[in-house]
Amino acid sequence: MINKTAILLISCPDQRGLVAKFANFIYSNGGNIIHADQHTDFAAGLFLTRIEWQLEGFNLPREFIAPAFNAFAKHHEVFAQPLDAKWELHFSDTVPRIAIWVSRQDHCLFDLIWRQRAKEFIAEIPLIISNHSSLKVVAEQFGIDYKYISITKENKLEQEIQQLELLRQYKIDLVVLAKYMQIVSADFINQFPQVINIHHSFLPAFVGANPYHRAFERGVKIIGATAHYATPDLDAGPIIEQDVVRVSHRDEVDDLVRKGKDLERVVLARAVRSHLQNRVLVYGNRTVVFE
Amino acid sequence: MINKTAILLISCPDQRGLVAKFANFIYSNGGNIIHADQHTDFAAGLFLTRIEWQLEGFNLPREFIAPAFNAFAKHHEVFAQPLDAKWELHFSDTVPRIAIWVSRQDHCLFDLIWRQRAKEFIAEIPLIISNHSSLKVVAEQFGIDYKYISITKENKLEQEIQQLELLRQYKIDLVVLAKYMQIVSADFINQFPQVINIHHSFLPAFVGANPYHRAFERGVKIIGATAHYATPDLDAGPIIEQDVVRVSHRDEVDDLVRKGKDLERVVLARAVRSHLQNRVLVYGNRTVVFE
Amino acid sequence: MINKTAILLISCPDQRGLVAKFANFIYSNGGNIIHADQHTDFAAGLFLTRIEWQLEGFNLPREFIAPAFNAFAKHHEVFAQPLDAKWELHFSDTVPRIAIWVSRQDHCLFDLIWRQRAKEFIAEIPLIISNHSSLKVVAEQFGIDYKYISITKENKLEQEIQQLELLRQYKIDLVVLAKYMQIVSADFINQFPQVINIHHSFLPAFVGANPYHRAFERGVKIIGATAHYATPDLDAGPIIEQDVVRVSHRDEVDDLVRKGKDLERVVLARAVRSHLQNRVLVYGNRTVVFE
Amino acid sequence: MINKTAILLISCPDQRGLVAKFANFIYSNGGNIIHADQHTDFAAGLFLTRIEWQLEGFNLPREFIAPAFNAFAKHHEVFAQPLDAKWELHFSDTVPRIAIWVSRQDHCLFDLIWRQRAKEFIAEIPLIISNHSSLKVVAEQFGIDYKYISITKENKLEQEIQQLELLRQYKIDLVVLAKYMQIVSADFINQFPQVINIHHSFLPAFVGANPYHRAFERGVKIIGATAHYATPDLDAGPIIEQDVVRVSHRDEVDDLVRKGKDLERVVLARAVRSHLQNRVLVYGNRTVVFE
Repeated sequence: MINKTAILLISCPDQRGLVAKFANFIYSNGGNIIHADQHTDFAAGLFLTRIEWQLEGFNLPREFIAPAFNAFAKHHEVFAQPLDAKWELHFSDTVPRIAIWVSRQDHCLFDLIWRQRAKEFIAEIPLIISNHSSLKVVAEQFGIDYKYISITKENKLEQEIQQLELLRQYKIDLVVLAKYMQIVSADFINQFPQVINIHHSFLPAFVGANPYHRAFERGVKIIGATAHYATPDLDAGPIIEQDVVRVSHRDEVDDLVRKGKDLERVVLARAVRSHLQNRVLVYGNRTVVFE
Repeated sequence: MINKTAILLISCPDQRGLVAKFANFIYSNGGNIIHADQHTDFAAGLFLTRIEWQLEGFNLPREFIAPAFNAFAKHHEVFAQPLDAKWELHFSDTVPRIAIWVSRQDHCLFDLIWRQRAKEFIAEIPLIISNHSSLKVVAEQFGIDYKYISITKENKLEQEIQQLELLRQYKIDLVVLAKYMQIVSADFINQFPQVINIHHSFLPAFVGANPYHRAFERGVKIIGATAHYATPDLDAGPIIEQDVVRVSHRDEVDDLVRKGKDLERVVLARAVRSHLQNRVLVYGNRTVVFE
Repeated sequence: MINKTAILLISCPDQRGLVAKFANFIYSNGGNIIHADQHTDFAAGLFLTRIEWQLEGFNLPREFIAPAFNAFAKHHEVFAQPLDAKWELHFSDTVPRIAIWVSRQDHCLFDLIWRQRAKEFIAEIPLIISNHSSLKVVAEQFGIDYKYISITKENKLEQEIQQLELLRQYKIDLVVLAKYMQIVSADFINQFPQVINIHHSFLPAFVGANPYHRAFERGVKIIGATAHYATPDLDAGPIIEQDVVRVSHRDEVDDLVRKGKDLERVVLARAVRSHLQNRVLVYGNRTVVFE
Repeated sequence: MINKTAILLISCPDQRGLVAKFANFIYSNGGNIIHADQHTDFAAGLFLTRIEWQLEGFNLPREFIAPAFNAFAKHHEVFAQPLDAKWELHFSDTVPRIAIWVSRQDHCLFDLIWRQRAKEFIAEIPLIISNHSSLKVVAEQFGIDYKYISITKENKLEQEIQQLELLRQYKIDLVVLAKYMQIVSADFINQFPQVINIHHSFLPAFVGANPYHRAFERGVKIIGATAHYATPDLDAGPIIEQDVVRVSHRDEVDDLVRKGKDLERVVLARAVRSHLQNRVLVYGNRTVVFE
């Protein structure tokens, strides 16, 4: 049983020796690497890596790891040129706090709560935010706070201020838009960028409203769902996970909606799980999902 | 072994009793139905059916079936209101003639030829048309006529006249655009509407040029291929078949192209086979593919 | 909106004219067929069909339909030889009553309850039976009766008598073994044959205990789940639905279990839905699932 | 463009620091790692890795790499305990030589030849061996030597001696059983263990003869194909790749065969490609397929 680990997610311009150098940083401090994966995007000239190692036996106390790695990354004798890395350090025993945002549909909400309780991912879900009051009963059933914040064209910006305040108050690390049928403003995303959305189409097909109706009208033979990080551009953020299901001429819009729900559930759950396990590295508008 | 059959593909406004009435038309003439499937599009108010029956023992000689069905469809005592049906009659022992159009890529061409020789579908392939000369060697290898017709912006319209002339001359029933990297004009389609195209994306995503490059840039986690009837609108015709394959951050554009080829092959082959077995019924911009 | 319909599921030796004759039976009594599908198993010489028609406007009161069809099926002028049909008559407004049997795992239980409440299928779930007490809390949460019936090698037969008594008492139409980790005896199945089981492998691979462990040991690259009717032979009953998911060397047994749960849920749900919509026709050890 | 690379495939008992130590071996000799992936099988206590680096700029001439790594692996100051590694060294510019074995079916043969000519993998195919003469025409079409070696119960062992002699003579590195419908003896496998077989079922279901017939009889809703290394136990060797396709009650055995061919083609091709790119590491009866 591997208990406590540290995880480094690093992206930097590619140069010779990076695999060895990063591994050495861990090893020379007594760390045992249990997962290391890297990817080089040759077109972009970028090296991207995820390294996970056991904290037990590691010589550096956890609060010193970040400064030590920072010093290491700037060490001019180790790296031929300044490393210019973007990196994040995570600890596996940190329990992230999630706010789930919903409208009227409950399938993703139920699914995420079930998975959290089944420990498919480790997180707390202290808060549900909705622009409807209809799912309050679910929140109560599971003992989660439920904040009803109505959204109109007129009040949207001020309501977002209240939403941000709630996220701060509940110390939320990740917002999951679990079929929240409202567009979140660019301003909001800039202030709180850790937002995963589920869109009910195989993006970039059917961006925006009513994707199942439009899929039906177009007569497609497969439908899909896409989990992505929300960005200021609608449905255009970095894709984390997608999946599809076959449909036929017998499927009416209602059938697409029903089949799509099964997709939305698993696609969103896989994306949230990968994110929470610090397996997702965003660069440009793309993701590396380390396995 | 079922040898010779007739197939009716019918679409008409829905009314009470259509299943029984069409079945009776066959049965009362001594026919044994071996496949009957129907679909009602309730939103469109349309009844769509495919009926296949054995010619052996059928009382009507095959040349009388169409006029007899025509008379039947107009029989005011049988139908509450005029039937107003669109219908096609096919015979399973007709061997359709296919022209395959290619540019430089040979994978779909090879695949279709292999399947035709393996009798996965019954057809003749007497003609290959290409805007390049590079696949002439394949045509020779299999003893198929190969017509090289160069296409430029300037000569396109007159070259299409030559292409149409070739289709007439070779008595072609179906054109398969098997990675023919040119847009066929609306005029051409109007004169020869039986054209199946393979597009290397899960339409409606990535309509037009370079779908694999654009899929890579968008960072999708699945890619697809779509076989559809060509219409005057680019990549917007009725979809016959689609399929997808999972990709990851490790896949560069070349890998998408390689994985996509496997998709294009099977998606195009399934669509061509369904069409040749008279299983595809187009209505509006949609298809029913009877199984 | 189509409200009340009747459904006939018929299997009989193939003979000429069956499509027309069955359709005529409905039509001549004023029925409007909204779904008709048939399949001929040429090897077995069997004709299998599902016909669904609207009760509104049908001339026969519903209690007369079965005797009328029975008389029709024996009518020696209609059928060249005695029809020798097995058939079932169902009405879409009958609400079947389901007992869900579970052991300790709750994912299929939750999923079925959610779908029933979301009206993905129409049924009542008045009873949960378990050989453990651990899921009683779920039953209470949703207001469903929960009967804990411990099973040991010694008491199994007498406990099955109690189980059968409960099914009678609750007027149960269908038992769903939703990860009930006990073998049900042949005697039980003979007395109550309407039992759907979910097995956590792509049968016939890994019949019996611990399929995920054995899949891991065999080093398979895909795992599956199978929903089938329970028969006296373990995991050998007619298959209704199967699906699979890709795994890799990175997946340990726990990961197979986790990924498998998502499969089990949807595969079982699809099978139960098809059964409840009277779309499944069993013949020999095979099923036709009409779509 | 990355031209020439060296690849190390290593499996050894897990110990602390392996990632760093192996990377250091490459880096300290001036190598630039372009792919490094590792997997720890915690249950088996095994560390498995694939490291690929550019030969350009590497300080060791290629003939010294193996002895140098051998010395390194035994260096008692580097490793806490003797490394006890199994390892293979490959060079990307080595062109492996494949013998394709077939019986009467040509679909996998055509497919592999097409892919080799399309450079989907780098290999030579100088030899086809068959127990039938029917595919000689394909061999001639592509200029490949074709050896017809009839197999009977009586002559099998002596014919295998002749087959082994041919493999030596043609300097074959890999035998691909591309629908070779004969069992290869344990003796043969012991003498020539590099054999990939395609089996037309999702193993371990339907081991042995006539899997499609048995799949039909069992009434499965999906069929599969499996590429695996041949071992003395029939269809029980380490699985490299599997895939499946959905079937229905409408599919007769012939349809399973036809759909299966599309599976067999891609599953075998993916396995051969992974093997040729030195991405497959066998341990126990399992494979790691590095991506």
